[in-house]
Amino acid sequence: MKYVSFLRPDGSASYGRLDGDKVYDLAQAGSPADLKAAIAGGALAQLENGQAYDYASIKLLPVVPNPGKVLCVGHNYESHRKETGRDPVANPSIFTRFADTLIAHGDDLICPKVSTDFDFEAELAIIISKPGRHISEADAADYIAGYACFNDASVRDWQWHTRQFTPGKNFPGTAPFGPFMMTPDEAGDISEVHVISRLNGEVMQDQPVKDMIFPIAQIIAYVSAFTPLSPGDVIATGTPGGVGAKRTPPVWLKPGDTIEIDCGPFGVIKNTVTKEQ
Amino acid sequence: MKYVSFLRPDGSASYGRLDGDKVYDLAQAGSPADLKAAIAGGALAQLENGQAYDYASIKLLPVVPNPGKVLCVGHNYESHRKETGRDPVANPSIFTRFADTLIAHGDDLICPKVSTDFDFEAELAIIISKPGRHISEADAADYIAGYACFNDASVRDWQWHTRQFTPGKNFPGTAPFGPFMMTPDEAGDISEVHVISRLNGEVMQDQPVKDMIFPIAQIIAYVSAFTPLSPGDVIATGTPGGVGAKRTPPVWLKPGDTIEIDCGPFGVIKNTVTKEQ
Repeated sequence: MKYVSFLRPDGSASYGRLDGDKVYDLAQAGSPADLKAAIAGGALAQLENGQAYDYASIKLLPVVPNPGKVLCVGHNYESHRKETGRDPVANPSIFTRFADTLIAHGDDLICPKVSTDFDFEAELAIIISKPGRHISEADAADYIAGYACFNDASVRDWQWHTRQFTPGKNFPGTAPFGPFMMTPDEAGDISEVHVISRLNGEVMQDQPVKDMIFPIAQIIAYVSAFTPLSPGDVIATGTPGGVGAKRTPPVWLKPGDTIEIDCGPFGVIKNTVTKEQ
Repeated sequence: MKYVSFLRPDGSASYGRLDGDKVYDLAQAGSPADLKAAIAGGALAQLENGQAYDYASIKLLPVVPNPGKVLCVGHNYESHRKETGRDPVANPSIFTRFADTLIAHGDDLICPKVSTDFDFEAELAIIISKPGRHISEADAADYIAGYACFNDASVRDWQWHTRQFTPGKNFPGTAPFGPFMMTPDEAGDISEVHVISRLNGEVMQDQPVKDMIFPIAQIIAYVSAFTPLSPGDVIATGTPGGVGAKRTPPVWLKPGDTIEIDCGPFGVIKNTVTKEQ
């Protein structure tokens, strides 16, 4: 199954089931208020289809607009680790984003006015299904509600002000997340899924999920060892080599550029860069 | 004025005004539901005193139990920068905590079962009063709702797994925050306030606020350049030299230890270390 969060034509927020070219509204009397609550309710697949909308015509929201926690993995593909000059490490590198950095398919990707060193990072994100702490690698798959594309767009100069990435990863409007979430039962084996970015149509990154240094089960086990996970929490699993900052000369996102993250069965999230006013 | 968040004898959460040895309940019909909402309402000082409780007998909560953002500054005193061997930097080092790491005065400070390298960090925290972005240093004081003690207790081995501090700073139950918040009008000039930690009664850290490398106004300006601030957000402003990890031999927090953070007019927050079960 695929699910989206969206705005109805009257401007109210809802969520729905995506089936073909239709989105069926799931937020009805008695059902959970938003996708995060529906995931927490544990009965997403049982919710009844409500009003149908054309997928092409609705305004999408970030797949989960209001996650409690957004965790991101750094340097999780060998190609990216090498281009950044980092030594191999025994544990995943984890940083965080605030939820107000998330944007939807079609939203403006906002280059801050304080910087021009604005970069893309194609990633696969997972969405957590149920509360968990000290989750074992063996049990990790049970905690995945779904998969979605993620663009961990990064303000490189601010990311590198100190060793802590926080500033460069937390400008508002810098994390496209969507367009939809696909559940694990529909996704099946994702090891051959390619994580791809295209800048103005040109492929910049392209690598399969199986190339991750720390596989998804290991990431979930590591993260849940230090912080409790809750339904709707998001983990962005790292980006392949090919980011703009490590090219010669560097390739920075400019106003008017289109940047797409394509994760095969998980769709394509496309955004156009604009400059913060 | 001083404010606290607390549990009434019936177990319901509230907030109140601390005056002498009494706490006056402020959550009444028609008033904001919690201290964060009351700060956001902008009329904290005008709320009417409700039922009085003995301060010594109530169960405190973290001053703001539910901040949207908790930002922390690393290496913000020269004494601590030097003991950690860090080079001087032109901008503050910023990392984040999840709100579920916060605990109150008197709560158990939880040493994770996955580590024994558990350390204290005495800090002064500020609480944000109103929404702000791109706040100038000149305007920063207008965005401070109050001050409180903060213990940025750190799981050092997990903090140093990679360059990103996230894991070591986000174990639940590792951030004492309180006991109360004092408003700036009562606090006045805070430059001579000392930030002190005492481990089982012995002073481990002691340095005045005026020794910060990046003063509070500069921190607020820097942080608000990359992320919007909201009422109730918390910024922990860094710890002086003297942490346990940099002593010879290292001093780690053990079950049964008491650790106090004393910020003079902002009170003392005291917690006893227990081991996660």
